[in-house]
Amino acid sequence: MDYTEIKKVIEQVYNLILNEENKGQQASYIPELSRVNGESFGIHITTIQNEEFGLGDNTGKFSIQSIAKVLSLCLAFKIMGETIWERLGVEPAGTAFNSLVQLENDKGIPRNPFINSGALVICDMLISHFRNPEEEFLNFVRDVSDNPLLDYSQKIADSEKSAGYRNVALCNFIKSFGNIRNEPSTVLDFYFKLCSLEMNCGELTRTFLFLANGGNKLSDNKSILTKSQTKRINALLLTCGFYDESGEFAFKVGLPGKSGVDGGIIAIQPNEFCISIWSPRLNEKGNSYRGLKFLELFTTNTQVSIF
Amino acid sequence: MDYTEIKKVIEQVYNLILNEENKGQQASYIPELSRVNGESFGIHITTIQNEEFGLGDNTGKFSIQSIAKVLSLCLAFKIMGETIWERLGVEPAGTAFNSLVQLENDKGIPRNPFINSGALVICDMLISHFRNPEEEFLNFVRDVSDNPLLDYSQKIADSEKSAGYRNVALCNFIKSFGNIRNEPSTVLDFYFKLCSLEMNCGELTRTFLFLANGGNKLSDNKSILTKSQTKRINALLLTCGFYDESGEFAFKVGLPGKSGVDGGIIAIQPNEFCISIWSPRLNEKGNSYRGLKFLELFTTNTQVSIF
Amino acid sequence: MDYTEIKKVIEQVYNLILNEENKGQQASYIPELSRVNGESFGIHITTIQNEEFGLGDNTGKFSIQSIAKVLSLCLAFKIMGETIWERLGVEPAGTAFNSLVQLENDKGIPRNPFINSGALVICDMLISHFRNPEEEFLNFVRDVSDNPLLDYSQKIADSEKSAGYRNVALCNFIKSFGNIRNEPSTVLDFYFKLCSLEMNCGELTRTFLFLANGGNKLSDNKSILTKSQTKRINALLLTCGFYDESGEFAFKVGLPGKSGVDGGIIAIQPNEFCISIWSPRLNEKGNSYRGLKFLELFTTNTQVSIF
Amino acid sequence: MDYTEIKKVIEQVYNLILNEENKGQQASYIPELSRVNGESFGIHITTIQNEEFGLGDNTGKFSIQSIAKVLSLCLAFKIMGETIWERLGVEPAGTAFNSLVQLENDKGIPRNPFINSGALVICDMLISHFRNPEEEFLNFVRDVSDNPLLDYSQKIADSEKSAGYRNVALCNFIKSFGNIRNEPSTVLDFYFKLCSLEMNCGELTRTFLFLANGGNKLSDNKSILTKSQTKRINALLLTCGFYDESGEFAFKVGLPGKSGVDGGIIAIQPNEFCISIWSPRLNEKGNSYRGLKFLELFTTNTQVSIF
Repeated sequence: MDYTEIKKVIEQVYNLILNEENKGQQASYIPELSRVNGESFGIHITTIQNEEFGLGDNTGKFSIQSIAKVLSLCLAFKIMGETIWERLGVEPAGTAFNSLVQLENDKGIPRNPFINSGALVICDMLISHFRNPEEEFLNFVRDVSDNPLLDYSQKIADSEKSAGYRNVALCNFIKSFGNIRNEPSTVLDFYFKLCSLEMNCGELTRTFLFLANGGNKLSDNKSILTKSQTKRINALLLTCGFYDESGEFAFKVGLPGKSGVDGGIIAIQPNEFCISIWSPRLNEKGNSYRGLKFLELFTTNTQVSIF
Repeated sequence: MDYTEIKKVIEQVYNLILNEENKGQQASYIPELSRVNGESFGIHITTIQNEEFGLGDNTGKFSIQSIAKVLSLCLAFKIMGETIWERLGVEPAGTAFNSLVQLENDKGIPRNPFINSGALVICDMLISHFRNPEEEFLNFVRDVSDNPLLDYSQKIADSEKSAGYRNVALCNFIKSFGNIRNEPSTVLDFYFKLCSLEMNCGELTRTFLFLANGGNKLSDNKSILTKSQTKRINALLLTCGFYDESGEFAFKVGLPGKSGVDGGIIAIQPNEFCISIWSPRLNEKGNSYRGLKFLELFTTNTQVSIF
Repeated sequence: MDYTEIKKVIEQVYNLILNEENKGQQASYIPELSRVNGESFGIHITTIQNEEFGLGDNTGKFSIQSIAKVLSLCLAFKIMGETIWERLGVEPAGTAFNSLVQLENDKGIPRNPFINSGALVICDMLISHFRNPEEEFLNFVRDVSDNPLLDYSQKIADSEKSAGYRNVALCNFIKSFGNIRNEPSTVLDFYFKLCSLEMNCGELTRTFLFLANGGNKLSDNKSILTKSQTKRINALLLTCGFYDESGEFAFKVGLPGKSGVDGGIIAIQPNEFCISIWSPRLNEKGNSYRGLKFLELFTTNTQVSIF
Repeated sequence: MDYTEIKKVIEQVYNLILNEENKGQQASYIPELSRVNGESFGIHITTIQNEEFGLGDNTGKFSIQSIAKVLSLCLAFKIMGETIWERLGVEPAGTAFNSLVQLENDKGIPRNPFINSGALVICDMLISHFRNPEEEFLNFVRDVSDNPLLDYSQKIADSEKSAGYRNVALCNFIKSFGNIRNEPSTVLDFYFKLCSLEMNCGELTRTFLFLANGGNKLSDNKSILTKSQTKRINALLLTCGFYDESGEFAFKVGLPGKSGVDGGIIAIQPNEFCISIWSPRLNEKGNSYRGLKFLELFTTNTQVSIF
């Protein structure tokens, strides 16, 4: 892959989209998120040759929200291995991302780790494992990213908690099936905390680069996940990373990826790079409008894809 | 990729599985299918360097069933382009493969072209387009495979029709929403016919090799689909190719693929090869028990995967 | 109960409603039904003291549609007794009247005999029992009503068949679960035929009066159903007679009853009378707009109710 | 109705059932309920002629659980009138009594006031209306029953709260749709409290006798509800009083009624009597096994029914 060419395409597509109407709505159900500037638009790419390139608001911080679910999953997978799949599945959900219907049919087993219910079960596992899960998780993220300054936003965590009735419902519902072991309020506090983790686009790509690098950190080649585990995380990102729009993302973009409700997206080209976008206005499926648009044009113009 | 190594792994895994218990049940709802020898077990691989290797019952013919849905989709996509997506989606179904529930919620729009409802809508499109759809479809398949001897099995088509109440229900249900344009009985006849298409493992890999070759036939480099269309078909195979087990297949195998109820499976490694397996006993999700097992071990041992 | 008072209330309420806007939509999915005059409005009451009173278009004929399901159920119940409940339930459906979702969850067992799926299963039972089910059913109806001139409308039956894709779907779906024993097309033909049965308001009340008379015909005291069976049919009419609006009807009207898509309604006050209304414009739940309105005011003003 | 005859039938049926096997399971999900003696079996009847008759454990106290939902509904209906129906429906639920699926489809509007979700919305209304809802509700019940000694069981309320994850989920889920106005924990505390209300069979029939008496207390003819409201409550009891077995109860028993998870049942014959049964073993639908059995035989032998 020609990195100069990639940079050129990024610039072209970025400018093209910047000049088009920015459709969609910012997340409004979390008070603090609605205060973010909806016109923010940043891009960043980091390759496994350690090349970096960013554009626009790529240094603006935002809460990575559901993108953090990938990191909590990786940590649980690293510690507990395949046993985690006894308590949740690996199938696309096929319904809205916070649906309770599926849980009722499946007796409290979430269909995958990226819907809210699955992420709550992963949080529950980490709470059972660690004495100080919030601290341990943050240490893990700081280690993966080589960035000791990354932190939660207590303000955003509090804001989510104040409006998180749907997640309270989800967590107690799973608890009623016995698939949450700790007190729901403890699990929810941890969940809201990890969703509040703040990064900018550059920090995002450097954090997730190990998924493009066979599970190893680029800086010191330290293994975060095995090669086989990395492959599996990437497969899950492809089939389940974009809620009820995962098929569409695979179809149009063709890369493993994950979105967050604050408008962030990461995407992975295995053995090549990690790319991130930030643009807070969301389409009706809850994914960044400009983020999807950018990645579709970027992969079409570069012919980058895993397929 | 080292082809000699690949062959060795295929032989090892084949023999390993052959010596293990063959679990699962043959499809019994289609009378003719239950007459097939459940212990049949064949493997075949064809690479884009035109190397071929087969083992076991790789020359035994069987009806490719739902694998034919990939070919009818390719034909419709080739002819009508992106307009086909106005009448069906590209999202994993999230429920059993012949569920009517989803159709009721989505007003007759099937979630993807590989569930029965979606395949029926594709059939309807081809019927509207061609004067002799059965003949035209067969010509297309023969052309793609360079094999003028490929044919339907009238016996199997008849057998499926005699027991196809669920498909009759599906087709009339979609018709009631207006998303079938022709008479349901005409659509069903064509559908049963294409599911009855017979191939052996070798013929399967040669037919589907174009999906590993950027959309072009290997023999004469003739374009069946554009590169972008090919990428999209492969994405669909990955997210939707194995009914309600698609996520599991992506997770464990990590290749685009498609299964049929007679025990056939194809899988694609883009830019490398097409591999097929035939073993008629199915797991409870309706996919070949040994086929899945083989592909999981094969990709683990060779570290082949798109991720 | 004072019959003179009842008559007065009927006249008052009839005139009140006649002067209000006639909201709702006529059934349009059956071509022949959309030709009926939407402004038709008839009322008729017959008491077990053999008093009769009619108003408006009470002598205009219309197809009684789903009201016929009560008669086919009574015939099957009379012949086969409680064994019929092995193949269908007695619970309100809780979803739209022709939903396939419930059938999928319950493996082909319809929730009650008044949703289309349940009525199809009852038809199937009668076909298995009689050599000439259409003739036998008509004889039963003529006998119950003392009216040898009652008949099907072939024109309406044909019209329903031409547009009956949803019912074809339902019948084949139940067949796929094994709960239809005869060929779906045979069952459907009989079903469309009995829905086409034509009566006027007066004929309706005379036919159904036995449900207000402990199961006996008024003219000759002949038993159609036992007292216990009659009670059960009335209970079913109360809980399931108005599709997804049955609770509302019980709540506001408080009488066992049944509606048809051509705008007919019957209601029973046990030990007192049968009343019928005909007005073809339907509310969004598929029940006669004026019919419901009339019965609500009628029962409120007379304080008639089973509760 | 001959009261001497009624008493004789009650004795016969009681003894018959007492000598048969007591099937079913006691509620186990609430720790305190599983301590109740499962063999308790009491009957009591009170007529509007003020005749009373009790048998067996008719003076044993138990928590009336969901039967209390009828009283909270009556209080809300009395105070707020028909406006309460803007926030919940009057249709049978068609699914298990604590299902979240229906709520998701209907955007937080419970289908009726007797499923848990509906009862929670009624609790929310009372909390918004009263400064001290627990006290006011208890005063209402004591007034209706002429019994100042009736009280909650704090022990049972606490026990339910400790295991009430499913109800916590329900309440927060409805809150997420905006149909709970107060804090979920406040609503839940009140809900668990009213379910813990304790009565014996005799107290139950005396409390609910007003529903058989046109809405008036027998002792002083004071109006609790209007005649029209009483009719509507009875209609709701008939269509929705027994969870997913309401149709069966109407079909076999034919009386408005309500069951509780501690094994209590009340049934109303309008203008005649109120009858109660207590037997803690439940069938799989969550209703008292012996209670249903008793009422079926009782109504069959006396030919009592509203139909």
